[in-house]
Amino acid sequence: MTTQYDLVVLGGGPGGFDAAVEAAAAGLKTALVEAAELGGTCLNRGCIPTKLWLGATSAIEELAAQSKARVASGEVRVDFAALQAKKDRHVAATRKAMAARLAQLGVDLHAGRGRLADSASIEVAGTDGTRTIGFKNLLVATGSRPACFPGLTPDGVRVLDSTGFLALPAMPQSLIVVGGGFIGLEMAQAAHRLGAKITIVDALPRIAGPEDREVSRALEAAFRRMGWELRLGVQVTSVTTQGDSAVLTMQTSAESAGEELAAECALVAVGRRPNSADLGLESLGVELSGPGSVRTNEYLEAAPGVYAVGDVNGRTLLAHAASHQAHYVVQRLLGKGGKAPYDSGPVPSILYGNPEVLRVGLMADEAKAGGESVLVSRAQLIQNPIAQAHAATQGFVKCVWRQGRLVGVTAVGADVSRMAVSAALLVRAGWTREDAAGFMFPHPTLDESLKAAMLADKEAA
Amino acid sequence: MTTQYDLVVLGGGPGGFDAAVEAAAAGLKTALVEAAELGGTCLNRGCIPTKLWLGATSAIEELAAQSKARVASGEVRVDFAALQAKKDRHVAATRKAMAARLAQLGVDLHAGRGRLADSASIEVAGTDGTRTIGFKNLLVATGSRPACFPGLTPDGVRVLDSTGFLALPAMPQSLIVVGGGFIGLEMAQAAHRLGAKITIVDALPRIAGPEDREVSRALEAAFRRMGWELRLGVQVTSVTTQGDSAVLTMQTSAESAGEELAAECALVAVGRRPNSADLGLESLGVELSGPGSVRTNEYLEAAPGVYAVGDVNGRTLLAHAASHQAHYVVQRLLGKGGKAPYDSGPVPSILYGNPEVLRVGLMADEAKAGGESVLVSRAQLIQNPIAQAHAATQGFVKCVWRQGRLVGVTAVGADVSRMAVSAALLVRAGWTREDAAGFMFPHPTLDESLKAAMLADKEAA
Repeated sequence: MTTQYDLVVLGGGPGGFDAAVEAAAAGLKTALVEAAELGGTCLNRGCIPTKLWLGATSAIEELAAQSKARVASGEVRVDFAALQAKKDRHVAATRKAMAARLAQLGVDLHAGRGRLADSASIEVAGTDGTRTIGFKNLLVATGSRPACFPGLTPDGVRVLDSTGFLALPAMPQSLIVVGGGFIGLEMAQAAHRLGAKITIVDALPRIAGPEDREVSRALEAAFRRMGWELRLGVQVTSVTTQGDSAVLTMQTSAESAGEELAAECALVAVGRRPNSADLGLESLGVELSGPGSVRTNEYLEAAPGVYAVGDVNGRTLLAHAASHQAHYVVQRLLGKGGKAPYDSGPVPSILYGNPEVLRVGLMADEAKAGGESVLVSRAQLIQNPIAQAHAATQGFVKCVWRQGRLVGVTAVGADVSRMAVSAALLVRAGWTREDAAGFMFPHPTLDESLKAAMLADKEAA
Repeated sequence: MTTQYDLVVLGGGPGGFDAAVEAAAAGLKTALVEAAELGGTCLNRGCIPTKLWLGATSAIEELAAQSKARVASGEVRVDFAALQAKKDRHVAATRKAMAARLAQLGVDLHAGRGRLADSASIEVAGTDGTRTIGFKNLLVATGSRPACFPGLTPDGVRVLDSTGFLALPAMPQSLIVVGGGFIGLEMAQAAHRLGAKITIVDALPRIAGPEDREVSRALEAAFRRMGWELRLGVQVTSVTTQGDSAVLTMQTSAESAGEELAAECALVAVGRRPNSADLGLESLGVELSGPGSVRTNEYLEAAPGVYAVGDVNGRTLLAHAASHQAHYVVQRLLGKGGKAPYDSGPVPSILYGNPEVLRVGLMADEAKAGGESVLVSRAQLIQNPIAQAHAATQGFVKCVWRQGRLVGVTAVGADVSRMAVSAALLVRAGWTREDAAGFMFPHPTLDESLKAAMLADKEAA
């Protein structure tokens, strides 16, 4: 007999797992179908391993900054094999805790690849055979995978995607990163601290392309100071393993012959693609758009009774966006929270490392691109005593204002991620300059740069 | 002729300086009287030098944590003489920038000790003689100084107060700290990183006495793991310089002979006392209370036209409280912001270092002491991936709830100060559990511990 569920979730990453937990805790009979590991990309092949690398190596950057300021000296050596072992243990322990939580709440975990059998049931192809489960509601939370382009296909030898890179047994001494987005830049920062000579190659004329132009400039200056080579605005023709090296060929102009770069390893981080194929969703009338994103309406519905959250719907490729969407969907299934369309609120986006980047809400460039004139105000980190104390004074906080209300915050510099939650709260509340003047920020904190930026003179963006 | 001012400010610390700047920027004719240095205790002898010490040495703690986790090894050496020189440069540069700002805004800076001449004028005794200036409004922002008790008077040789300690040319190899409050604990943490063997002595049975009991316990455990000796609940009879040592005598019980402790240096940090004497305020009808705090009404007025902000009014001995009060007073003088009594809003209080302590709003212990029953909910840092990444998993975030609304946040552990502003915003807004569930916290961040604590099951405090 086919087991019937109130909710079947496809995919056990941040969105799917949170949805299953919340639904089961609220009394819905819930199943979670996962083809690989609980935790998805974020836990196993993305944010968490990267943050473990960055956390374990942060003393290296702190020391470098104080050394440059001639206050400290010494050496910090990170045992990469020990770090990788710690990472594997941490990830495995978290997966185990997640499985225990599902079991505790009575969520049935079906290991295997799920595919629609008909409009109300899923066929799960597991290692122990195939079973069919029925659903009243379906949540597609199958995530995404590294994108690859012709000529840029990781071969798993010297040319790796983020998954392969995070699994390396030893850090290469030189690394070419194809793609100057947040994924590539975070991994490159960790690799730099662990001794790799870094070259970033991007087709765009600047790194961190989706960010504010001033942020890109600040990042480029910081990374160049760290000795990185940035090759921007160049077209990569191919990246291949040749002997013991990764060799990248690029076309710098229409006339030029293919210039070559070589390194011990190449990381291809040119974006991600939704995992939407082979789910059989078409039979329900679900539409795909762009690179294969599941199209959702304002209620995150892809078809009646079928929802999609997280990377697979292409809205925001961030773990916390997936979790937030999952909460909305479960509340909706439970009939709670009214009938309002999904509203993400201000979405914080962070580049971790040192420097860090923080973005919440509207960017000045976005507003301008949309033909809107906004005002901006700024504070430089060099004026902050905590930035001074950490000898990390490069960077700024920039506020974007619309009709006297804060609508966006962009920041770059050491530790600026600590302003993420407060910036999101202030943007959500639409604070005015006067609100900021009347609110007590603790002194001394780096966070005061946010207040200073809000109090600074406004100018046209 | 006596120059007449709309506002005369006594004291150029955070409260007085901010008031003078804001008043002058708004067009009030303003004078600032400062007997010593601009920046007050915070800049010259308090928060800022301590944070420069903690910032410069943070790599030492990061390395220690990763070494303990067997991921890193090495050594970080801080050149204390270079650090002190940097601190002196930083403090001097900041003072210079402050003076420039005052000059730019047309604030007259009168160097010298101010004292009331009559009900509308101040006599300033400077090095270049005495002058008299007239005021329409007076702001007393004279701050505080280290307290001393009989037997605990710093002699400036081996027994120092915080001022003397921050001026040391070399860090002692062993240090007795008398007083387990935030000032002593921050300086002890810096000293520990710089190689000093630490002993904390306090008359109270726990360190960080004003904090939540669980916070004190967590701190004590952390400091004992760092090898500190904690002598709590003991009465100190005397601390004196004897030869090359500081020798402390204590009475552990009524019967015991005076047990002695010796170290290269002793820091007496047993609180602070308001600088309210010899100002001539009594002639205006200003009253002093407790240890000499200027008594203020709900509008921060000590007498008609006379206001007091910051440490000297004894409300909250924190720089940001002084600045916040200063803003209120200036707005009031300008006739802005209505006639509402002063409302501090949630006051964040932070112990810096590693571990850190954060407190905002109501503590469970306070509520209980007041006969009120509140609920609490908690999250442990060990469950947070960023705490894991920094191998600093000891600590927790604790939320205090009244009628379903967040009224307080207390946290202890590495980097918990990063939640200060958001915790203050959430307490101010009186968030519910459901508000937290529906708000997107960035993942992965330590800040998610605050969300986790808000979502955790509530129990009686």
